[in-house]
Amino acid sequence: MSPKITTELLKHLRQVMKNPRYVQEPVQAYIVPSGDAHQSEYIAPCDCRRAFISGFDGSAGTAIVTEQHAAMWTDGRYFLQAAHQMDSNWTLMKMGLKDTPTQEDWLVSVLPEGSKVGVDPFIIPADQWKRMSKVLRSAGHDLVPVKENLIDTIWTDCPQRPCKPLITLDLSYTGVSWRDKIVALRSKMAERKVMWFVVTALDEVAWLFNLRGSDVEYNPVFFAYAVIGMNTIRLFIDGDRMMDPAVREHLQLDSTLEPEFKIQVMPYGSILSELQAVGAGLSPKEKVWLSDKASYALTEAIPKAYRYLTPYTPICIAKAVKNAAETEGMRRAHIKDAVALCELFNWLEKEVPKGTVTEIAAADKAEEFRSQQKDFVELSFATISSTGPNGAIIHYKPVPETNRTLSVNEIYLLDSGAQYKDGTTDVTRTMHFGTPSAYEKECFTYVLKGHIAVSAAIFPNGTKGHLLDSFARSALWDCGLDYLHGTGHGVGSFLNVHEGPCGISYKTFADEPLEAGMIVSDEPGYYEDGSFGIRIENVVLVIPAETKYNFKNRGSLTFEPLTLVPIQTKMIDVNLLTEKERTWVNEYHQKCREVVGAELERQGRHEALRWLLRETEPLAPVQ
Amino acid sequence: MSPKITTELLKHLRQVMKNPRYVQEPVQAYIVPSGDAHQSEYIAPCDCRRAFISGFDGSAGTAIVTEQHAAMWTDGRYFLQAAHQMDSNWTLMKMGLKDTPTQEDWLVSVLPEGSKVGVDPFIIPADQWKRMSKVLRSAGHDLVPVKENLIDTIWTDCPQRPCKPLITLDLSYTGVSWRDKIVALRSKMAERKVMWFVVTALDEVAWLFNLRGSDVEYNPVFFAYAVIGMNTIRLFIDGDRMMDPAVREHLQLDSTLEPEFKIQVMPYGSILSELQAVGAGLSPKEKVWLSDKASYALTEAIPKAYRYLTPYTPICIAKAVKNAAETEGMRRAHIKDAVALCELFNWLEKEVPKGTVTEIAAADKAEEFRSQQKDFVELSFATISSTGPNGAIIHYKPVPETNRTLSVNEIYLLDSGAQYKDGTTDVTRTMHFGTPSAYEKECFTYVLKGHIAVSAAIFPNGTKGHLLDSFARSALWDCGLDYLHGTGHGVGSFLNVHEGPCGISYKTFADEPLEAGMIVSDEPGYYEDGSFGIRIENVVLVIPAETKYNFKNRGSLTFEPLTLVPIQTKMIDVNLLTEKERTWVNEYHQKCREVVGAELERQGRHEALRWLLRETEPLAPVQ
Repeated sequence: MSPKITTELLKHLRQVMKNPRYVQEPVQAYIVPSGDAHQSEYIAPCDCRRAFISGFDGSAGTAIVTEQHAAMWTDGRYFLQAAHQMDSNWTLMKMGLKDTPTQEDWLVSVLPEGSKVGVDPFIIPADQWKRMSKVLRSAGHDLVPVKENLIDTIWTDCPQRPCKPLITLDLSYTGVSWRDKIVALRSKMAERKVMWFVVTALDEVAWLFNLRGSDVEYNPVFFAYAVIGMNTIRLFIDGDRMMDPAVREHLQLDSTLEPEFKIQVMPYGSILSELQAVGAGLSPKEKVWLSDKASYALTEAIPKAYRYLTPYTPICIAKAVKNAAETEGMRRAHIKDAVALCELFNWLEKEVPKGTVTEIAAADKAEEFRSQQKDFVELSFATISSTGPNGAIIHYKPVPETNRTLSVNEIYLLDSGAQYKDGTTDVTRTMHFGTPSAYEKECFTYVLKGHIAVSAAIFPNGTKGHLLDSFARSALWDCGLDYLHGTGHGVGSFLNVHEGPCGISYKTFADEPLEAGMIVSDEPGYYEDGSFGIRIENVVLVIPAETKYNFKNRGSLTFEPLTLVPIQTKMIDVNLLTEKERTWVNEYHQKCREVVGAELERQGRHEALRWLLRETEPLAPVQ
Repeated sequence: MSPKITTELLKHLRQVMKNPRYVQEPVQAYIVPSGDAHQSEYIAPCDCRRAFISGFDGSAGTAIVTEQHAAMWTDGRYFLQAAHQMDSNWTLMKMGLKDTPTQEDWLVSVLPEGSKVGVDPFIIPADQWKRMSKVLRSAGHDLVPVKENLIDTIWTDCPQRPCKPLITLDLSYTGVSWRDKIVALRSKMAERKVMWFVVTALDEVAWLFNLRGSDVEYNPVFFAYAVIGMNTIRLFIDGDRMMDPAVREHLQLDSTLEPEFKIQVMPYGSILSELQAVGAGLSPKEKVWLSDKASYALTEAIPKAYRYLTPYTPICIAKAVKNAAETEGMRRAHIKDAVALCELFNWLEKEVPKGTVTEIAAADKAEEFRSQQKDFVELSFATISSTGPNGAIIHYKPVPETNRTLSVNEIYLLDSGAQYKDGTTDVTRTMHFGTPSAYEKECFTYVLKGHIAVSAAIFPNGTKGHLLDSFARSALWDCGLDYLHGTGHGVGSFLNVHEGPCGISYKTFADEPLEAGMIVSDEPGYYEDGSFGIRIENVVLVIPAETKYNFKNRGSLTFEPLTLVPIQTKMIDVNLLTEKERTWVNEYHQKCREVVGAELERQGRHEALRWLLRETEPLAPVQ
């Protein structure tokens, strides 16, 4: 992977930063955030502005370009990748390390007195605007909104914004109709005494209306906003997709409906002016509810006194707690996904020794097996298919320049998942197709101990996920090892593979307490730069636990793995496991056998079934 | 303990809330925070306004009185105590439980439209003012500063503000001179480009000048503020204590000094006007550094554009990392403290069966033994001497009305500590002088497992204490048990027994990363309401750890117990311990034997030594 040469691009950008055609006054710095106007993590090609200007295309990162400097902030998952993809015009700012300055502090340290810092107000979240603006102002600088996106002005071959057809989901998938979701939302609005709710996140629009799209790769969402009043519903969406009879039927656009359920369809681009009109027409005490991560532009459309901002919207919180239909769908999706992976690993085991399977070929094969499963829609993220040293690049994606061939001498890490109409999957397995070294087994076993510590943890109702993060690290820490990423993220139900408001991370973020029905990943890892990467990831469902004393009726929670794919026993040093951990592995494998075995049998996949049976043999007793 | 009858008091308060002599406009609610003008946790009698108005005298709590309601917010440590001490005029708001409203939300729910909410601007921290003010304003109410404290106007027999003599500490105790501390502080100020630093916390003033006082019980501090400029030092302090020749010598008040080390002594009450003068004289870019917890009154004295607010001051952070002189002092103090407790427990073992030892008598005896030790100054907090059901009141202090007699049938919990000139101690032991039940032993053993899990934890440099909190709970959680308080707090060096900026808590607060030299407590517990309380607390020092792989040179940390008092083996169900835990207990007891045994021998305390030897016998092997 050779870095993108950005010398000319940066020169152009620095020119437009001073060009009165685009900026009222010259800006001495320009911020290029990662997201789109919906603060999406995964974005459409037309929104990949930070990748365009820098070459670094990881999922998280913020670029800042000044007259003298170009700097990129990203987190531990991407240190190696960013360093590889960016040329020497760029300075990498490693977030999470002690000496790395924040973007604001760095700006203050490099800018000449009284500087203007520009940013696209549609791209920057309001909370981030507020924080940056405050620090900059207190140092004598100004954060200014630049209406025209400066990257777009220099991006001559910028792709079109996608506008793909929609999928309607019936009750058997969603469990709740969009009308009932609107009713529940309005009741939350009434509780907080707000009159309007602005839906800005794409997955929230999709969830609310029980619609899915494919405007963003891997995320079944579509570009839209919604504004919900106590008696009105406005959906801002472009293209002719509202002409689709199935969509019209689903949204009852042509039916005679009570006025409060009548959906007004408006152009996507009219959200700002419509919201400004709402803002202008508010009477005292009429509040408008927005996420504090909504864009600065939309937030500013509502006068400050009328804003009601929360870190998580009621849709985000409702969406996180899966109902019975969604949970059952997720179970089905994970069984199908396990079938595909049993096929894949069985195939790899035969093919790898021949020396003909590359990372890309393995990823393609995984997709092929998944696509054979019912209701498969697409992958849920770019497959991380990595062998040997590539495994240490935490969010690696194989490209022709980096594409290694799998061998019996290296560890292979596969982190992959799919979107099925009934659920979203995300699973990582780390395999060795030859004989792992003692050190590799040792590291793998510590990671496994951490995985089990979270998966088997019992905790009281109301516990926040970040309190469980250290359980995943304890075995690694004891030996002086660690990993620089969180342990888990929320997972959507045929929606984004990363979703809030819960997670398991050492980072102190405002996570909501875990409750039964929430679904998160459990994915500790260990990465040896230049050598190998290890990660063991299951998607797990929060379920009530049985305990001896039950927290005086406060109730207990634990996790149930939805992912049912064997964990390679060859990689386990059984003598490092406790008896309890050994039993966990054996019981997990027994469940894989029963549940996935039955499905393999049903699908007539006998060779993969034999592989499954062999891979789920009980572990030898601890010596 | 019968509740304080507050009907008349509340009537008076509600009258002055409308009296134009005290308030410009009537206030519909009045907030009575816990702290004093320095946001101290422990406060002088003249500052116990919340206890005066409500009867509830725990260390944490905020009262709010409206025309119709009187409500008290406190945390899990105090639910029982507050319920006992307050009459039915008061509603207890249990913080940390899911359905308890915040103070702001509650005010919004009960106040008539357009209300004024009053508070003493010297008592409320600026960050809290900001938060409350914002929520109230957005609901159409106003938070207003009421200059005269309304409680003081109705508190006819309010005690005088104390003004006791000072103690000077030489280098053998502090390791660093006050001049060098000023130099270090100014270098931190220069780094952040601030010209002034306002010291508002009492322990920070004491630490900075290497002085101690006794204005507040248990905390060796004195009422003072300081304002440090790049070339000036102003100390705001009352009384004739600056006439003390030892203090004058220590502060070099009569020496010819470089001007930048010349201390200007000013009256305590002149801080506001002096700070306003500083604020008025600032030129652009001259910032003033304050804690964001400094009072609203002092914060407002500096125009907003000139303020530099941080959650922790550089003094707070420097103070937390103990130097070699302080660490050695803490070790000595803990050995002396252990001697006193060996004497006490030996005495209790003989006396309890006679049925003549009350909780108060036991606390007095503990103080007597401590006071025999060299450099003893006072206790470091009110001794929690509690038996049977009183043990479940987490911050219980025995008073004549509640004073139970210790017996061979109940668990006894003693949480106590002292101030020695060389260090501060804080230790909890839970003992049974008869035969504990299987359930009591089971709970004790889970608490011990949690204590060991924290104490023996190994973690990478830069880890924040809150990430270790769940280690203390895991064994309890597995059985459906928990405790409603944090696991540990920072401990001062002959200073406050609770200090920032580090700690070990499930509460997400802005704790600073742990580093070698920091000192915290490790004190998980379990409380069975109406039956018993269990807590095992050591003060522990953060030290470098040896690990197999050492986090790629990032470095490892662990804890070393400074407290060396036997943990009652009679209470341990050895079969619930892992081999590693059993070894930990045995090695800990071996160290108690060696270190404290030698000191008992040196002091000729042979009976207590025999007790120690018996109590530190190795545990039987796990069956």
